[in-house]
Amino acid sequence: MNISGTTRVFLIVGDPVEQVRAPEAFNHLFAKHGVDAVLVPAKVSAPDLSAFVRHSLLAENIDGLWCTIPHKAALLELTDERDAQARMAGAVNAARRRPDGSLEGALFDGIGFVKALDHFGIAMEGRRALIVGAGGAGMAIGAALALRHPACIALFDSAPGRAAAASRRLSAGSVSAIMPAASADPAGFDLVVNATPLGLNAGDALPFDVDRLDADAAVVDILMKNQPTPLLQACHRRGIVAHPGFEMMVQQVPEYLAFFGYDDIAEAVRVDAADIRALFQAS
Amino acid sequence: MNISGTTRVFLIVGDPVEQVRAPEAFNHLFAKHGVDAVLVPAKVSAPDLSAFVRHSLLAENIDGLWCTIPHKAALLELTDERDAQARMAGAVNAARRRPDGSLEGALFDGIGFVKALDHFGIAMEGRRALIVGAGGAGMAIGAALALRHPACIALFDSAPGRAAAASRRLSAGSVSAIMPAASADPAGFDLVVNATPLGLNAGDALPFDVDRLDADAAVVDILMKNQPTPLLQACHRRGIVAHPGFEMMVQQVPEYLAFFGYDDIAEAVRVDAADIRALFQAS
Repeated sequence: MNISGTTRVFLIVGDPVEQVRAPEAFNHLFAKHGVDAVLVPAKVSAPDLSAFVRHSLLAENIDGLWCTIPHKAALLELTDERDAQARMAGAVNAARRRPDGSLEGALFDGIGFVKALDHFGIAMEGRRALIVGAGGAGMAIGAALALRHPACIALFDSAPGRAAAASRRLSAGSVSAIMPAASADPAGFDLVVNATPLGLNAGDALPFDVDRLDADAAVVDILMKNQPTPLLQACHRRGIVAHPGFEMMVQQVPEYLAFFGYDDIAEAVRVDAADIRALFQAS
Repeated sequence: MNISGTTRVFLIVGDPVEQVRAPEAFNHLFAKHGVDAVLVPAKVSAPDLSAFVRHSLLAENIDGLWCTIPHKAALLELTDERDAQARMAGAVNAARRRPDGSLEGALFDGIGFVKALDHFGIAMEGRRALIVGAGGAGMAIGAALALRHPACIALFDSAPGRAAAASRRLSAGSVSAIMPAASADPAGFDLVVNATPLGLNAGDALPFDVDRLDADAAVVDILMKNQPTPLLQACHRRGIVAHPGFEMMVQQVPEYLAFFGYDDIAEAVRVDAADIRALFQAS
């Protein structure tokens, strides 16, 4: 990494931002592939987001923004155009400045998730998925899972009305059946996803009853911390196939790179992501 | 250099910005001393400067700005407070956000110059200096040279009235006599400084008549390119002591570091700047 006056700059905007792993991953790739670019953090509060986004991109060599909590939905509102995933889920992970100065957003969270399923060898066509948690993560996963033509996607959320609202929004852009679930009962589903924060804190209940999982069901817990999570441990004790969430981070990396015009590195990471996987796995 | 979510960020703002050496110098020092900070370029046009400066500093971890051409005077106007050097010369090299959100500017160009004189062993107390070129660089050098209590500082500029205006401005903040010179004749001066761009382009005239220099005069040519410059070559042919300008860049480095709160690294560079000197010398 040799930053000079010619370096292209990207900012990852969040609040907090201290926990993000993206600078390590992407700066590693930029250096490895000899790309004169850098990703640096910008801790921006929600009230300042709009002014910061509009004006930081006045710099000709600041080409775009990565975005994390709590700004994914707010940044979508600041974009002039968004991809289908962003429109369905109501959030963006990244925004790039186009030649005319307008801002284009895209969402990769869900794409990363379904590519992680591909990586795990989990096929979804004609099968049934349950997503527990209909917040931003659950919405993004639902929006992308629909691209794999499952028989149905059920959404559950403990907050009344949230799963119904999310299902309505996702159904508008989807070819698959997306519906709210009355409970988190995982029985009868081929894939069950934890998209809640349950497991982050000691003493959290499991997000659903592991004993009710079909024996051949697959589970993904998108929590990044506390590996293996209590849910993964409970699944493993029952002999259920269960994967941690970091692979969805790994699989998003080439999406970001391609979005920002680094197609060659994106392709290289698609072919071999071992170093990026090791980086996220170690976190 | 390991950029993460906790990294403090500084921006060097210029247009063009591709030629700046500061990111290499300061990022080398941050890495060498284990400081979690990074300096990245931001290419911002003059019309966008105000909006960019005000809003980029909304990010809590973007602590300040380095500034280069053509923004040094404009950035001063955006600061809420400035040091004495900045007020005298009408320009700033850097601005930092204070805890109350206000912006404080400082000018180091001239300080770097007089510390370079110290490094060269050139004492100025009671002696006579001629600065050829009364633009931003000449003004900054004049403002700082006054701190060394010379007998007088003469300013010459080929643009009519410019040296007189610069002398008036500098005199307001100075304890030394600062006056316009009617010509660039170096006869009778102990120190003669080239603060014009003459020497940048092939076929440029020398900024003053080297044959008219006193035999024991010292010369500094602040041009960074085309080393040794035509002026330095002409002085050396006559056996006149003459120094290139990069040392004034070297000597500014600890000033920036201290201004942004990195006193320990500043002190380390004051004790031993060999690596920074080699970096600028190689440029």
